[in-house]
Amino acid sequence: MMDRQKIVVFEGDGIGPEIMAAGLDVLAAVTQGTDFTYETEFLPFGGQAIDQVGEPLPNNTINQAKRADAILLSAIGGPRWNACPKRPEDGLLALRSELGLFANVRPTVVADSQIDQSPLKGEIVRGTDFVIVRELTSGAYFGEPRSKTFDQAIDTMYYSRSEIERVMVYGFDLAQSRRQHVTIVDKSNVLATSKLWREVGQAVAQRYPEVTVDYRYVDATAMAIVADPTQFDVLIIPNLFGDILSDEAAQITGTIGQIPSLSAGATGPKMYEPIHGSAPDIAGQGIANPISMIKTVSLMLSQSFHQDKLAKQIDEAVELTIRRGQVTPDMGGTLTTKEVTEQVMNAMQEGV
Amino acid sequence: MMDRQKIVVFEGDGIGPEIMAAGLDVLAAVTQGTDFTYETEFLPFGGQAIDQVGEPLPNNTINQAKRADAILLSAIGGPRWNACPKRPEDGLLALRSELGLFANVRPTVVADSQIDQSPLKGEIVRGTDFVIVRELTSGAYFGEPRSKTFDQAIDTMYYSRSEIERVMVYGFDLAQSRRQHVTIVDKSNVLATSKLWREVGQAVAQRYPEVTVDYRYVDATAMAIVADPTQFDVLIIPNLFGDILSDEAAQITGTIGQIPSLSAGATGPKMYEPIHGSAPDIAGQGIANPISMIKTVSLMLSQSFHQDKLAKQIDEAVELTIRRGQVTPDMGGTLTTKEVTEQVMNAMQEGV
Ligand SMILES: CC(C)[C@H](C(=O)O)[C@@H](O)C(=O)O
Ligand SMILES: CC(C)[C@H](C(=O)O)[C@@H](O)C(=O)O
Repeated sequence: MMDRQKIVVFEGDGIGPEIMAAGLDVLAAVTQGTDFTYETEFLPFGGQAIDQVGEPLPNNTINQAKRADAILLSAIGGPRWNACPKRPEDGLLALRSELGLFANVRPTVVADSQIDQSPLKGEIVRGTDFVIVRELTSGAYFGEPRSKTFDQAIDTMYYSRSEIERVMVYGFDLAQSRRQHVTIVDKSNVLATSKLWREVGQAVAQRYPEVTVDYRYVDATAMAIVADPTQFDVLIIPNLFGDILSDEAAQITGTIGQIPSLSAGATGPKMYEPIHGSAPDIAGQGIANPISMIKTVSLMLSQSFHQDKLAKQIDEAVELTIRRGQVTPDMGGTLTTKEVTEQVMNAMQEGV
Repeated sequence: MMDRQKIVVFEGDGIGPEIMAAGLDVLAAVTQGTDFTYETEFLPFGGQAIDQVGEPLPNNTINQAKRADAILLSAIGGPRWNACPKRPEDGLLALRSELGLFANVRPTVVADSQIDQSPLKGEIVRGTDFVIVRELTSGAYFGEPRSKTFDQAIDTMYYSRSEIERVMVYGFDLAQSRRQHVTIVDKSNVLATSKLWREVGQAVAQRYPEVTVDYRYVDATAMAIVADPTQFDVLIIPNLFGDILSDEAAQITGTIGQIPSLSAGATGPKMYEPIHGSAPDIAGQGIANPISMIKTVSLMLSQSFHQDKLAKQIDEAVELTIRRGQVTPDMGGTLTTKEVTEQVMNAMQEGV
C-alpha cells in the first residue's frame, strides 16, 4: 500500500469552487477501492484568501503547499478585487515563484471528434497535437525594477542563462517522448532577453541531436498557430509570450472549457489547473463546464502519481460523455455542472 | 497644379525590390495625365544599406526621409544579416523613432469574396473589419537599460503618460470615423506599464462619450481575434503586444500578401509598407505577390495626398484582378509578379 498522498486544493474564485467540487467528486469515485489513497487540504488562496485574511497568498497557504504531493487549482481572480493593493493574480505569481514552478505545460490537441468546435477550418486544424512549454517564474512577470507613477511606468524583462536552460531542457526532454521536434519562440530580432533565449536554445539543442529544431519569431508563430498548427510538436517560449500564444492555441481547439495544464519545478509538488479563467459572469449558476477540472485531476493522477490506469478511466469516461452530448451550454448542451459530472461518473462505472 | 510631391522609396531586402517595382509601376500608371505629380528618391536602408555603407540607417537616408512628403517601404531583413552588429531591424526601429511614427495602423478586413482564403470558418470570420492601432516608438522596443552578457539579459518596458495619450487619441479619433468602438488591450493584471496604459485609456475615453470602450487583457484578446473577430472595431495596443496580435489578425484574413499599413507621427511624413516580411526564401524568383505593395501605394495616395479617386481606381482594379484569378501562387494562381502587375494596370485602363 502506498503512502497517503497529500493534495492541496485551491478552490479559487468565480466558477472555481463549482468545478473543483466536480473534479474532486470524480477523483473520489475513480480511486475508490484502489490502493491509491489521498487526503485533501483546502487552503485559502486568491480572491477567496483576500476576502478571508486580506492577502492572496497567506503564509500558511504557501507553507502547506510546499509540503503537498500535488496541488490542484481551479481558477482565480475577478473584477471584485481589481482595486485591491494585492490582487488574486499577485498571489498566483508569488505562488509560482515560491514553488519554483518554472515550466508551464499546456497541451493543444484537436481530436477528430472536436473539429466541428474549432473556429479553424477542418482541413487546417485536423491532426493538431502540440504542447506549449512556457517559462513561468521569470521574464517580464518578475523582473525588477517595476514601478508606476502618474506620469510613467516601467517593467523589466530579465532572464538568466540558467533560467532559460532549465526550461529548454524540460522542453527538449518532453520532445524526446513525442515527435522529437522543438520550436524555440522569441523576438530575438529586437529584444536582448530573446537573443539570449535563442542562444541558450541553440546550445541545449546540441545535446539533443535526434530532436529537430526551428527558431521562430513570436509574431510569425502567432500567425503559424492559426495558419498551420499541425507543424508544431513542442514550443518553448518565454513567460510573457507564452501567456499570449498559449491562449491563442487553446482557442483554436474551440474547447477551452476542456483543457488542463501543469506547472512543474525541479523538485517539489507540481500544480495542476485548467487553462481557462474564473468566469465570474457565470459563477454561481451551476452551468460551468467541469470537464477542464476533471481532466486536470486526470493529468495529476498520471503526472504526479503514475496512476495512468485511473487517468485513462477518467479520460475515456469524459470522451464518452462528450460523444453522448451530455455537456454544458458552452459546448452546445443543456446539462448543469453537476449533471455532467454525474454522467462522467456513470460512464466510469460502466467501465468503458 | 499642386506641388510635386517627394516620395522617398526604400526598396528593401528579399522580395522588396520586386514588389516595390510593381507598386511604383502602378503609381506611375494611375497618376499619368492627372495633376498629381511626384518624384521618387531611392535611398539605401536596411540590409541593402548594410551592404552598401555598413549601416542599416545611414545619416543621409534619415535626413532625406525627414524631408519627404511620404515614405514607401517594402520589407527588410533576412538571415544574411543575422550576425551583423546592427541588423536591418535596428535600422527600422531607429527610423520609426527618428520620424516619430508613434501610431502604426493595420487594417484587418475580410471581404465576402475572401472568406475562402481565411483559415477561420466562414461563419466566424464573415464581416470582420477592424483596425489595430499599435504604439510604435516606445515600450519594450525602446526602453533602457537593455543589455546582454553570456549569463543574463535585460530589456526594459517603458511608457510615459504622454506617449500613451497621443496614441490613444489617434485611436479614438479613428474610431469616431468608424463604428465608434475601441478595445484597449493590455496586461494590466500583471505589468505596471499596462496599468498605466489602461488608466490613460480610461482618461482619454472620457473625452469621447460617443465611443464605447472595452478593456481587454492581451491573452484574452489573442483568443477573441480567433473566436469572434467581428466584435472589434479599433484596438489600441502597446508596441510589443501589437507586433504579435497584428500578425495574428493579419493571418485570419488568409491574405497577408495583400495587406498594407501606415505609420504616422504628430507631424512629418507618414510611412507606408505591406505588413508581411521580406520573404528571402522566394526572393529573385519573380513570383512574389505584388498586391500588398500596390495597395500600399493606394493607401499612400488617399492618406498622405488626399487622392481618394486614384486610390479607388487602384483598389477596384486590384479587386477585379483577384476576382479574375490573375494572381500569384501564394493566392492559388500561376502568374508572376510582373504579370499580376500588368493585369492590375490593364484593369485600371478598362476604367472599371
Ligand atoms: C491570471 C494571470 C496572471 C495568468 C498569467 O498571465 O500568467 C493567466 O493569464 C495565465 O495564463 O495563467
Ligand atoms: C522587423 C521587426 C523589427 C518588426 C517589428 O517587430 O516591429 C516587424 O515584425 C513589424 O511588425 O513591423
